[in-house]
Amino acid sequence: MIIIPTIAGFLGLFMVLIVARIALKSSPGTEKMQELSLWIQQGARTFLKREYMVVGIIVIIVFGGLSLAGKWQTAVSFVIGAVCSALAGYTAMSIATSLNGRTAEAAKKGLKPAFSISFSGGISTGLFVTSIGLLGLVFVFIVFKADPMIVSGYAMGASLVALFARAGGGIYTKGADMGADLVGKVEAGIPEDDPRNAGVIADNVGDNVGDIAGLGADLFESYVESIIATLAIGASLLIAPSLIDSSIWGNVASFVALKKPLFLPLYLASWGIIASIIGALSVKVLKSQEPQNALNSGVYIGAILMMIGSFFIIKKMEVSVGLFGAMVGGLFSGLVIGWVSEFYTSSKYKPTRTLAESAQTGPAVVIVNGLGLGMGSTLIPVLILAGATFLGFTLAGMYGVALAAFGMLSILGITLAVDSYGPVADNAGGIAEMAGLGEDVRKTTDKLDAVGNTTAAIGKGFAIGSAAFASLGLFAAYLITINALSTEPITLSLTDPKLMCGLLIGGMIPYLFASLLAGGVGRVAFGVIEEVRRQFKEIPGLMEGKAKPDPTKCVDIAAKGALKNMLIPGILVILIPVVGGFLLGPVVLAGILMGTLVVGLVLGIQTANSGAALDNAKKYIEEGNLGGKGSDAHKAAVVGDTVGDPLKDTIGPSINILIKLMAVISLVLAPLFVR
Amino acid sequence: MIIIPTIAGFLGLFMVLIVARIALKSSPGTEKMQELSLWIQQGARTFLKREYMVVGIIVIIVFGGLSLAGKWQTAVSFVIGAVCSALAGYTAMSIATSLNGRTAEAAKKGLKPAFSISFSGGISTGLFVTSIGLLGLVFVFIVFKADPMIVSGYAMGASLVALFARAGGGIYTKGADMGADLVGKVEAGIPEDDPRNAGVIADNVGDNVGDIAGLGADLFESYVESIIATLAIGASLLIAPSLIDSSIWGNVASFVALKKPLFLPLYLASWGIIASIIGALSVKVLKSQEPQNALNSGVYIGAILMMIGSFFIIKKMEVSVGLFGAMVGGLFSGLVIGWVSEFYTSSKYKPTRTLAESAQTGPAVVIVNGLGLGMGSTLIPVLILAGATFLGFTLAGMYGVALAAFGMLSILGITLAVDSYGPVADNAGGIAEMAGLGEDVRKTTDKLDAVGNTTAAIGKGFAIGSAAFASLGLFAAYLITINALSTEPITLSLTDPKLMCGLLIGGMIPYLFASLLAGGVGRVAFGVIEEVRRQFKEIPGLMEGKAKPDPTKCVDIAAKGALKNMLIPGILVILIPVVGGFLLGPVVLAGILMGTLVVGLVLGIQTANSGAALDNAKKYIEEGNLGGKGSDAHKAAVVGDTVGDPLKDTIGPSINILIKLMAVISLVLAPLFVR
Repeated sequence: MIIIPTIAGFLGLFMVLIVARIALKSSPGTEKMQELSLWIQQGARTFLKREYMVVGIIVIIVFGGLSLAGKWQTAVSFVIGAVCSALAGYTAMSIATSLNGRTAEAAKKGLKPAFSISFSGGISTGLFVTSIGLLGLVFVFIVFKADPMIVSGYAMGASLVALFARAGGGIYTKGADMGADLVGKVEAGIPEDDPRNAGVIADNVGDNVGDIAGLGADLFESYVESIIATLAIGASLLIAPSLIDSSIWGNVASFVALKKPLFLPLYLASWGIIASIIGALSVKVLKSQEPQNALNSGVYIGAILMMIGSFFIIKKMEVSVGLFGAMVGGLFSGLVIGWVSEFYTSSKYKPTRTLAESAQTGPAVVIVNGLGLGMGSTLIPVLILAGATFLGFTLAGMYGVALAAFGMLSILGITLAVDSYGPVADNAGGIAEMAGLGEDVRKTTDKLDAVGNTTAAIGKGFAIGSAAFASLGLFAAYLITINALSTEPITLSLTDPKLMCGLLIGGMIPYLFASLLAGGVGRVAFGVIEEVRRQFKEIPGLMEGKAKPDPTKCVDIAAKGALKNMLIPGILVILIPVVGGFLLGPVVLAGILMGTLVVGLVLGIQTANSGAALDNAKKYIEEGNLGGKGSDAHKAAVVGDTVGDPLKDTIGPSINILIKLMAVISLVLAPLFVR
Repeated sequence: MIIIPTIAGFLGLFMVLIVARIALKSSPGTEKMQELSLWIQQGARTFLKREYMVVGIIVIIVFGGLSLAGKWQTAVSFVIGAVCSALAGYTAMSIATSLNGRTAEAAKKGLKPAFSISFSGGISTGLFVTSIGLLGLVFVFIVFKADPMIVSGYAMGASLVALFARAGGGIYTKGADMGADLVGKVEAGIPEDDPRNAGVIADNVGDNVGDIAGLGADLFESYVESIIATLAIGASLLIAPSLIDSSIWGNVASFVALKKPLFLPLYLASWGIIASIIGALSVKVLKSQEPQNALNSGVYIGAILMMIGSFFIIKKMEVSVGLFGAMVGGLFSGLVIGWVSEFYTSSKYKPTRTLAESAQTGPAVVIVNGLGLGMGSTLIPVLILAGATFLGFTLAGMYGVALAAFGMLSILGITLAVDSYGPVADNAGGIAEMAGLGEDVRKTTDKLDAVGNTTAAIGKGFAIGSAAFASLGLFAAYLITINALSTEPITLSLTDPKLMCGLLIGGMIPYLFASLLAGGVGRVAFGVIEEVRRQFKEIPGLMEGKAKPDPTKCVDIAAKGALKNMLIPGILVILIPVVGGFLLGPVVLAGILMGTLVVGLVLGIQTANSGAALDNAKKYIEEGNLGGKGSDAHKAAVVGDTVGDPLKDTIGPSINILIKLMAVISLVLAPLFVR
């Protein structure tokens, strides 16, 4: 039975091979472009290698700790998860950085060819992440005989890599971006992506590190965790088959024989990869349309196929349609959260337009309104998420909650493809600018980039929504696990002040974490600024365009700074559930997890949407509205954008990992806490 | 037995009478100063009257609703609470606005006389709020025979008035402030508090409306709610005296005869007023010291007296010293939260200095760092609060939690006196500037104002801490009430997805509320800006100082705008617990309340401290550091301050009310939800 997900996984990898090969055959452009592309690729690879070295040390420490605690199987599973996630991030990033220059080159021929190549980068990321994720999971699942506590180690490994990718990558990308922007646009008065600015390559490296490797690792984690949460809860159902609700699972004999709650998510995930492949190919076929429409169509086709296929899978397995309902609820809520993000952050709609108008009253007003916009944008996603959770539970208990979370991530192959095409287009624009490719090409890449900004905003909304849902699934699995393992029943009642205190403390953690990251961005940006300033001063002829800057220095400063500044928040996040569980007990820890989730969800949505709206308000003005470039409104909007940058690209994405990592560590260590 | 709190209450009022009378006998200054003072007073009175009219309508509606639901006694109690709170706010504001000009006049003679008069304003607010709060409560307590469900109506009335005072006043004060600043300092290039700026009077009115009437109403509410929470939980103990823990409450006979859990908080509150009076008078006696030291000494003397006195009260009542421990834990945690706020927001310490330094890199960096600073500042207060909660519970169960909350507020007379002296000093500075009183006087008032800024920051930290604690007490009372009233046991387990969903939804509410308020501030500021611009344009000779502006127009615009823009968030906050309780049931509502509390606590602390640190970083630069006034760092810091203003003076304080109001409405309506 395990053959189905294996085939689906390899099919996905095969598709990546074909799509990437075709795209890589296109012209890499002029020598200058190839050089720029190579710089970006090498910078990104250097950072990832450094990141993986630091992660490697922590992986070894955790491996040792788990082995000493007698959990060597979990430890092995943990290492496999970390390796798979790192591999996915590295591969996706390598393909994407090989396609940015080619996209710029194709832009000479027009919008469609450029779109086609940049979207090939998206497909590669989307399908590689899901396929490797599923294959690794299936491997662990077989080797360790479906023991959920061991398999959850796989998720923990993925989570650790994601932490570094998101928090480290987030500090890197925004430290470099803010540094390059502040010294270039503000001090030296030269445009964005100007080749004289030594920080620009680091900025472009950052886009790949943060938005491709980071986003990929983030959603890799959500994806495998949503499956593992269903597996863990499913395993608890299999412990006492006589207690199962046969109106949901059919007769007991086939329930046990087929291990339905374990195989259902694997079959659905397999179909999800196929649906994603078809969705992705349809974008390629539909490329005669506007890029945004083609992308939307791809997602919808994937979603509809997912619904149809899963309906038949559920019928075939002879389980309740309620399970179908739970999954579709999650799938639908993912789409809605994406739309809401788009509505709040795209300059096509009123919120961002009003925000742009308020920039006329100065930077302070646009920033306050930007923060307010993000806060207000939490309303619908939270209600939707709560609704899908409640629906899942009503239809199929805690298993339904986890299945709803999986539903949201089921067509990750196509949603991630759409989200991660943006950075390729963004980089193409940067290369076009730096290589001096002329107005027309730049216009085409700008157009692609604008679409990429919208999909990036949707992607960020989706990432936080799915992170919250995945960690809700893990949290449910944690609650079930501690109750199952404890000799006396554990009451998790709100009338217990231990739980109350846990909730209060948990609520503070995302704020503390965000504060540490914000400080890190500031320090890295300052380092980049000093280096760019030094180069302008010390390299003769640089300002006049007669000499070249040395971008590797900036790349180096950003990379070292990012890893240094993420260590304390990173270790903190790992230690809190460990210390909380051992010292304060599983009840306080449950409170901490839920408190972190409650605050992390709204803080994540707020930071993502505030930042994206401020970014797009600035772009809206740059398009010539409200006075256009150089106007007071534009100056105010630039300040707003710079405030929004670390919110949306460092704090927001890192919060996703925070809530998942704490939940998965708690789940893995739950057996040790209860004893 | 009820005579003790009655005497204490009247003693407090008598002290106010003496202190205010003496202060009012001092010279009111020149005619110009009297005119300015009168404008501010009339503006503030006009706003409060309008506010009370709107509140009055809502009070009548709620009164009608409660009466129709057969709860006429609760309805009466509710009206009394609203009237007492409104009376306290109006009186405190009237005294304060009568003393601002007198403080400026006294500043001609030196720092000490000016400090003495401005602190008289503080004492009046502190003692009036606590005395009226306690007297009104005792009255309701006697009339309705100590029925906790009826008495809690008193708290609901106070809460409703506080909502308007904080949210309406907060929009007013920052709308006027931002409007006046943006058009004056930024556009017209004239200094702060310049008499040519038509918005300046509105700004000064706002200080009184927000920081005196608003803070007073806020802490009035916390104060009575912390007492009522102990009463409500205490009443539940008296229902089944045979079940009480005699190691805490002594023998059952005396427990019942003396109604110990009901009278203990009233006796402690009585002593708290006396301790506050002595603390306040000691500030007057110690006026030869530096103002900051004198204020600190006053608070410490009050705290030490409170500890000593309550130890004897608890001994005398023959109850466990554990109750003393719970109360002292709360008292101590209030002091610590104040210190933490001071550490993070005063330019004496590293965080704000580092923040000021980062202003050299531009407005975006200082704002990001300011937000980060506020987020990081949540760590200690949350841990302290969780610790005090846990200690209270360990020593004396849920009653101990409520008693700890009361402990924090027990010496409110002196803490509020210290917190509310600042706005008087601030206004005195404004009047000195507008009346052209010369450099020396202005220096004295600046010195007083700087101390006032520190105490204001401490006050804001204390206000959110006490609000969270008071609503935790109310929440505990709510949980006990729904469990006591329900025929079948209500499980409030985290494994119940209804509770989970409630928590998620509750977590979003403070963000939604904050978003609506931020939008309101922006709209009011815009209205003020347009009016000031219009006056500069249409009144001939205004810019040259030959003609006078018309401040009443700006006062009017701010007042109308504030009340209009707070209606939707205000009604929302009132409706959420009502709709949640009736439609979704008491369990979901419990989740919503706790989720709101968890997020509100950190958001409240963050906004208060981010705003105060940005404000003080600007002032630190204005003192001549890092380039001083006019430098790029200063310009950046001004933008930072303008972003911080609505955070600390509108959103932060309103969040205090949000968490309390929702909890108290739920408690009052609990009997209706359970049926």
